[in-house]
Amino acid sequence: MHVMIDLCIVPLGVGVSVSEYIAECQIIIKRTGLQSQLHPYGTVIEGEWDLVMGVVKQCHEKVHEMGAPRITTTIKMGTRTDREQSMQDKIDSVVEKLGTENR
Amino acid sequence: MHVMIDLCIVPLGVGVSVSEYIAECQIIIKRTGLQSQLHPYGTVIEGEWDLVMGVVKQCHEKVHEMGAPRITTTIKMGTRTDREQSMQDKIDSVVEKLGTENR
Amino acid sequence: MHVMIDLCIVPLGVGVSVSEYIAECQIIIKRTGLQSQLHPYGTVIEGEWDLVMGVVKQCHEKVHEMGAPRITTTIKMGTRTDREQSMQDKIDSVVEKLGTENR
Amino acid sequence: MHVMIDLCIVPLGVGVSVSEYIAECQIIIKRTGLQSQLHPYGTVIEGEWDLVMGVVKQCHEKVHEMGAPRITTTIKMGTRTDREQSMQDKIDSVVEKLGTENR
Repeated sequence: MHVMIDLCIVPLGVGVSVSEYIAECQIIIKRTGLQSQLHPYGTVIEGEWDLVMGVVKQCHEKVHEMGAPRITTTIKMGTRTDREQSMQDKIDSVVEKLGTENR
Repeated sequence: MHVMIDLCIVPLGVGVSVSEYIAECQIIIKRTGLQSQLHPYGTVIEGEWDLVMGVVKQCHEKVHEMGAPRITTTIKMGTRTDREQSMQDKIDSVVEKLGTENR
Repeated sequence: MHVMIDLCIVPLGVGVSVSEYIAECQIIIKRTGLQSQLHPYGTVIEGEWDLVMGVVKQCHEKVHEMGAPRITTTIKMGTRTDREQSMQDKIDSVVEKLGTENR
Repeated sequence: MHVMIDLCIVPLGVGVSVSEYIAECQIIIKRTGLQSQLHPYGTVIEGEWDLVMGVVKQCHEKVHEMGAPRITTTIKMGTRTDREQSMQDKIDSVVEKLGTENR
């Protein structure tokens, strides 16, 4: 099962700056070779369910290893059986509608 | 790694009523024997990471099998290494503070 | 417009224990008289949109006043025009299906 | 109070394709002049709290007007009093750490 997730990991108990933890998660994500896109409030990742969810677990393990005693994460996840739709397809689909309506 | 999640599964393409899908997910959750609590906007589940996340995958598979061509799910998930904290502990911790401040 | 939200406020930069902040938010919510239900990973609140969203803003203001320099909040929010549905209605709808399927 | 939100609006009861609804929301967001960034699983918007949350309300109203009888939305929202941080600042902060660690 293919899944697209929007992952936002928030370490607690390490002060207000969390970017070093997010950067380590980016490294983990990149190493898997999964398609991903960093945005200002999370990272969208797509691929086979077990690989993608494995990445989430690895990120939690890593962020704890780095010293965060507590983590709260928000994930949106989408699956569909009607057709394949990549991250770029989703963007294109909205932009195309925008083009039509702005004419 | 122990995890507590708040799971909200939303089937798309099946009309506005989604309770029969949520009910099937409740059955899956109950069968695992994991601690869980249904609330008006999701279900909180706690236990070992792989078991809990396995339940999420089973729910997606089941909801697709039931005919939903698309699913979008929102999950909040918390892990901590400093101490154990059950669902009831979290509630108690807030209620205890409330008691003190309401005196 | 009536809305039901699931509110999870997470103060950052104040250590791992956040229950005192959540308790203050509970007091704010209760004072409004809006229907609400605390669960282990958030609070479900329902009522008129502006009142409900006003509560969210007051909670952020209060948590900052209490000393949290940063807050990250996750909200699920539902509106519907087809019919009214309370928090209890949502629970009942799932439980009723469960009863039927468990026969 | 300045806020950054990640907004993901999901119309229910209108089939599996929701991009036309998202496109209308993009038009509403753009009209406000608020900084925003569309990504594959939502749109990040930043600005003054009341303006940003007003946009969310307008989007719900519009999507209902377009015929969706039910909407479920997921929002992540961040506020901070310690310093200003734009959407680009957040990205830069992570990318900078990545640069250092990849050396």
